[in-house]
This record gives sequence, C-alpha cells and structure tokens, in this order.
Amino acid sequence: MDGGGKELGRPAPSGGGVAVWTLVVSNLAYLVFLLCQYHINRRRCDKSSVTRGRPDAKGDALSPDAVINLEFGDPTMYEAFWREAGERAAAVIPGWWGMSYFSNAGGLCWYLEPELEREVRRVHRLVGNAMADGYHLVVGTGTTQLFQAAMYALAPTSTDRPVGVVSPAPYYSTDLLLSGYYRWAGDANAFHGDHGGENIELVVSPNNPDGAIREAVLSSDSGKGKAIHDLVYYWPQYTPITSPAAHDIMLFTMSKLSGHGGTRLGWALVKDSDVAKKMVYFVYGSTIGVSKDSQLRAAKILGVVSDAYEPGPGDGTQLRLFDFARRRTGERWRALHAAVAATGTFSLPDEITGYCNFTKQTVAAYPGTLVALHANIIPSLLQLDLNSHAFSAFAWLRCYKDGVEDCAEFLRGHGIVARGGEQFGGDARCVRVNMMDRDAVFNVLIQRLSSIT
Amino acid sequence: MDGGGKELGRPAPSGGGVAVWTLVVSNLAYLVFLLCQYHINRRRCDKSSVTRGRPDAKGDALSPDAVINLEFGDPTMYEAFWREAGERAAAVIPGWWGMSYFSNAGGLCWYLEPELEREVRRVHRLVGNAMADGYHLVVGTGTTQLFQAAMYALAPTSTDRPVGVVSPAPYYSTDLLLSGYYRWAGDANAFHGDHGGENIELVVSPNNPDGAIREAVLSSDSGKGKAIHDLVYYWPQYTPITSPAAHDIMLFTMSKLSGHGGTRLGWALVKDSDVAKKMVYFVYGSTIGVSKDSQLRAAKILGVVSDAYEPGPGDGTQLRLFDFARRRTGERWRALHAAVAATGTFSLPDEITGYCNFTKQTVAAYPGTLVALHANIIPSLLQLDLNSHAFSAFAWLRCYKDGVEDCAEFLRGHGIVARGGEQFGGDARCVRVNMMDRDAVFNVLIQRLSSIT
Repeated sequence: MDGGGKELGRPAPSGGGVAVWTLVVSNLAYLVFLLCQYHINRRRCDKSSVTRGRPDAKGDALSPDAVINLEFGDPTMYEAFWREAGERAAAVIPGWWGMSYFSNAGGLCWYLEPELEREVRRVHRLVGNAMADGYHLVVGTGTTQLFQAAMYALAPTSTDRPVGVVSPAPYYSTDLLLSGYYRWAGDANAFHGDHGGENIELVVSPNNPDGAIREAVLSSDSGKGKAIHDLVYYWPQYTPITSPAAHDIMLFTMSKLSGHGGTRLGWALVKDSDVAKKMVYFVYGSTIGVSKDSQLRAAKILGVVSDAYEPGPGDGTQLRLFDFARRRTGERWRALHAAVAATGTFSLPDEITGYCNFTKQTVAAYPGTLVALHANIIPSLLQLDLNSHAFSAFAWLRCYKDGVEDCAEFLRGHGIVARGGEQFGGDARCVRVNMMDRDAVFNVLIQRLSSIT
Repeated sequence: MDGGGKELGRPAPSGGGVAVWTLVVSNLAYLVFLLCQYHINRRRCDKSSVTRGRPDAKGDALSPDAVINLEFGDPTMYEAFWREAGERAAAVIPGWWGMSYFSNAGGLCWYLEPELEREVRRVHRLVGNAMADGYHLVVGTGTTQLFQAAMYALAPTSTDRPVGVVSPAPYYSTDLLLSGYYRWAGDANAFHGDHGGENIELVVSPNNPDGAIREAVLSSDSGKGKAIHDLVYYWPQYTPITSPAAHDIMLFTMSKLSGHGGTRLGWALVKDSDVAKKMVYFVYGSTIGVSKDSQLRAAKILGVVSDAYEPGPGDGTQLRLFDFARRRTGERWRALHAAVAATGTFSLPDEITGYCNFTKQTVAAYPGTLVALHANIIPSLLQLDLNSHAFSAFAWLRCYKDGVEDCAEFLRGHGIVARGGEQFGGDARCVRVNMMDRDAVFNVLIQRLSSIT
C-alpha cells in the first residue's frame, strides 16, 4: 500500500490548540464515566444505583435513587421489538463456522461475509436511502472504526501534517488521539475556500446531536473538499427518506438501524475502489477484519427487517421494525414534551416536511429538535399524528432556567446523566439526551423532568 | 484521560529509516495479497485457483493448479474438531440479546461479558498457563487491537516522540502505521542499557515465526524496560506448560487456542489497573468495545474446551481439544519432515524438553523448528511418540538449494504462498509456512514439497 514510506506527522503548533481543546472536551464524557465507576462520587455513581443497561430487559423497576445515564446513545429501546420477533431473529452459529480470517478471499473486502453483503444491499434497495449498486461495501467494527478508516484513506500522502477534520457545530466528535494521520480541526463553518479544501469534512445527516439534515459546507465551497457522510440515522424512523443518497463515502451501522449496538457492526458504501481498498487495509491493520459472528448475526437481523416489508409467505402478524420505532419514539417525544411543558414551557423549532419514498406519505420531522426547560413557547407536539412523523434519536435540550450555566451539571443534580453541549462544540446550556434507552429508564427520565421546578 | 493534552509526535529522523524499512516490509505481504486479488498475475492468482478458506470444509478436493496460500496463520485445521463437537458447541444468540454497548457498566472493562470473563479465568486455571487471579481482564478485537492498546497504555506521556517497539529477530511485526504513539524500532538485541529502557519490548513466547521460548531481553538488561508478553501460543498443543506465566501484560487469543480466527476475540491479563484502564480506553476509542456476539460465542467455545477436561456428567466420548490438536499437528510435522527428507535432507534443531503441568508428562517440543530444503541432517521426527510432543503452529523453513536467495519466491514458483523471512527481520532464504490450514490444503503442500527436486 502507499502508506509504506509515509512518516507520521506532528500537528502544526497553530492548529494544536484547537485540537487539544477539542480532545480534552471529548474526553470529558469518558472521564465522568470512569469517575463514576471508581466511586469518586459515590452518592451519584454508586454501582448499585447507576443505571445503564440491564433494568427493564424484563420489565425490572428501578430503585428510586438510581442515577439514569442517557449520555450515550444506547439503543436498547429496540429490545422490546426483538423479543417480540422471537426465534425467527435468533442467530445460530455452529462451532465450526467462520473460523477462517477470510470470508471472500477474491473480493475487495476479503473479510466480508457474502450473506451480509446480500442483506445490506437488499435493505438499501428496500428503503431507498442510499445507492448501493455500483458502490463497494466495506464492513467495519462499528462506524467508529470506519470513520477512522475513511480518514486514513482520504488523508493526503504528500504532507507530513495530519489532515484536519471539520464538521459544523454542533457536532459529534470522535476521539482522534489514536492516530497520526488526522486531527480534529473544529467547526466547518470557520473554514472557507482553499484553506477548507485541505480538510476533510464530516457530514452527519440527520445530525448528531440535533437531528438536522445537512449537506457538505466545504466541499461545495471550494469544489475540492473531501467529505465523509455519516448517514447512520438516515432510516425512516428518524427522518423522511426523500431520495437515495449517493455520496462518495456513506457510513451506516446496525446500532441505529435495528438497535444492535453491542454487535459492533457498521458498513461503508464507497464509490472509489482505491479509497475502499485503503479502508479495508485500515481495518486489516487495526483488527484483522470484522467479527464473523457479528456479520452472521447482522445478516440474520437485516433479513428479518426486510422480510417484513416484502411480499412473502408471512402470516400477516410480522412485526415491522421501522413502524415499531416510529411509533415508539413518537410516544416518547410526546411524553418528553408533556413533561417539560408541565414544568414551564418549551420551544420547538420549525418542522421539516418531506415525502418519504419508503412510507409513501408526507412525513414531518423535527430536525434540530430543541426542547427548552423554562422557555416560553407552547407545545404543539401533543396532538401529532404519529403515523406521519419521524423523530430524532436524541433530544437536544436547552435549559433556560435562571442561574443554570451548565445544563448537564444541573440535570446530574436530578439524577440524570446527559452529554453536555460543549462536547459538541456548542453551548453548555444544552445537553444531548438519549431517547432510545429501555422503557423503565425513559419513564424515570420523564418523572424526573416533570418534577423539576 | 491523561492523553488529552498530548501532541502526536513525529518519528525522529534517525529512527525513521528503520521504521520505514520495516513498515515497507510488513506491507509486502498485504501487497502481494492485493496483487493476487486484482489479477496482476492471473496465472498464479486467479480467483478460482487461489485457495484460502473454503475447500476442505466438507472434504472438497483442490484443483491441480490451485495456488495454496499458507502465508497467514489461518487456523482452519480446527474445523474438524468443532464439526465433531456438534451441537454442544453451537452458540445461539436471540435477537434481543446483547444490544447495549455495555456489559458490565460497573466494571473496569465495561464492555466485557461476565460469562466470557468466567470462562477465560476457568480455562487458565485448568491449563495453568497464566496467573489470572489478581489480574484485570481486558478484552479486545483480537490481539492485534490489544497489542496496540498495550503500546498506547505504556507509551510515556512526557515525550513528543513516539515510543519504539522492539523484539528480537525473527519477529512477527504488526503494521504500526496507524498510530502516532509508537513505531517499530527493530531487533531488540540491537538495544542495550538505558537506551533500550526507553523502548517497549514485545516478547512473543512461543515465538512467531520460529516457536522459540523467549524471555524479555531489554527488561532484564536495564531493569526499567517495559514488556508486552504475547503468549498466544502458550497452550499445551504447542509447547509444554511448565509454569503459570505472571508478567505485567499477557496477551491471548481464541484463534490460537481453539482455531476461531474469524471471531476476532483476544484478551489481555493486566497486572496494573491504570494500564488496564488505558487499554480499555483505547478499545473504546477505536471500536467502542468488542462484539458481544463474539464474546458470547467465545464463552461457549471455552466452556466446551474446559468441560472436556473436568470431572462431570460427560458420556466419556467428549472430544478434548488440546489432545486433538497435539495429535493432528504431530501427524502434520511428521508428514512435512518426510516430504522434505524425500527431496534431500533437512536439519532439525535441538528439542526442548519440559514437564508439562497440564498433561502431567514430560513433553518434547521443537522450538525454533527449522526445516531445511536440501541441507544435510537426517530426520529424526518420523519415529516420535506424538503423545509426548508439542508442535509449533508454523514451520520456519530454510531453503539451502543452490541459487535460491528468496525462498518465498522459490516456493511461489511451486504454487505455495508463504511469508518470507525478511518480513520477520530475518533471512530471505527462510519462510514461514502455516501448519494449521485445512487437511486438503496441507495435503497439497506435502505433495508439492515432495515433488521439489
């Protein structure tokens, strides 16, 4: 590969400050998490009272003093769907299966199981959210790995400086400490023209944390920028599917599609074969491919998702994943708005309406949904027809309460852990709240928000 | 974490040459592989005739002109064992299981499934190859990821230069292009005293490629070196288990223990909790944990392995993995020696004999097994009692044939792809040949070696 003779670069001192600041910030969430684990703040973080995961899997109730952690995007809301799906969704892996490092030795992505490739292409054809034909499929250990692989592939080989990665604020930033090839350079809106062209833009659409529909800022600016499109939320439960995306590099993941976060499986649709080869090389170098077990399971899960929407010998009672998720998240958004409204009032930005080619109807979505504590606009979401709406997987909440400068800290005082806005290059009065946790956790969130005076 | 304010470093120019050379070399294998994939040499590398993987899974025969690829350590020899094990080794994963990113939110390694932790500790207690009590268990997406995690954890934060990683030649080198924290610095024997103390030593024992039992060179030298012990081959089928290892960081993987290479699952036993936390942080940053599916499957497989050696309600017909592997590899080594002997003669280094605490007998192993084409020592392996021997997973083969300077190139002319000695910091007249592929592939290897005149 071309990287053989390339030296690792040092960030230019001028850019170092931004990078370091962002990295410090992006590490804070993890630090808080570790602090919780190691009992520095035992009252809030006692093992027995921190809730992330297990409760509600079987309808367990939470203890009254449990801290609920909605900082991460744990997608366990979907467990209820997959319990209902029963045996048809179970993956059975014989002891002798998938022992080789190789799945398709003659293919560009030699560790990709052909069965997974078939199901990935099938679900994209079904939903119509991305052009898969004519694209190379590169599988990764979650989109986190693929994001790094894409940056490795796009970074110019002709410079000894790491390439800058930018995204318009608010953005979801990954820890870039681990590489010498790229560094976080901050808000894409701060770059223009040729200077921006040297950077790689990360386009997240719908955006994390605020659900906004986005297009590249730099690429259209200079005409020569490189972009990575993170489309992990571009599924019908989150936003109307207005057209099949056809960007150079498009990232997707099981965790947002079906809720299988623990499976650690994502994929990239890549137009250029040289870029795809470099991404495969990165995955080879960092983990020697991707778990076959996860690939088999993902293929099984995707098959169940697609089967329910296609004509077949079904019994008419098949669960439909996107319908389930739209209904459930709609109920949750209504409950959230009602809870916040009960404590005062809240704001709601303009909705975006689009014809969804998948559901065959006009769908209203709330990109950039901003729920504000103690603001002054009356809720309108309570009367929504859930069948014609799509909802963001996160609430991007703003505290207007007097004296509250740090919303994450404020909520922590009420037993709610959420990720502060500064970590997204935004305002500390904002937080991102996961809307996808289990019912028992979500219900506690609603109770606590309702009780804030 | 502590890395928040750290800048990525550039390799010092003086060390750059060694690093670049090694990286170029370490990329060659992959390049050859890619070239094969893309048909630059269609005769040798045609998709239909390159064999790596599928054949022999069901006893399929190979086509006469198939190129066999023994360059990688694909452990598919074990498939036969797991087919025999049948249903008891099958992992069944319900659709709703393992959806969260978290497995044990209160634990140091928060993505580690408790069931896997139990089985890992159990198999180490059973075999007696490593001290697990008192050690932290850190799971990774294969040892490749853990190796990088360990280097990240051990790299000093006080310098802007990447730390050097060394290992005595011949060594198995990983591609270090992906990080700004460490660089490959070459042969550990070239470093002494304080200078060596600045480096991290990778101790692979039994060694890859040559099976030698090794101890740290630098650490004992200066008293302040840091070492990572790669013990992936320290299982009874490969070498006598003379005592439980108790090093600071010890790496293991399913692929070498049970043959599950495609599962991408390894673990580290780590003495120091700060080092373990940094390793967990690395895995979080690069892949947000490790596939739950692989963890569940590995727990199942390890349970089957241990059950067969422990008193229980077994039916007396349980297959025993370590016995299977010792017998099968012993047969293969005999066949290899016979084949090479038939073409001339070959050398065999001194055997190492040790009392194996697991098999409760004295076991002779052939560390550094060097099989030479056209040398002058008579084989002695043909008369071995396979029950009292252990065998390396690779043959480290030396060509003595006149005019052959590049053994890998020479073998490629006979339809055998193996990894050349230069990639291990050794002699181009040596190659590493995988001894762990499927029977059909191994049998072709023997036929072709026998036909070399």
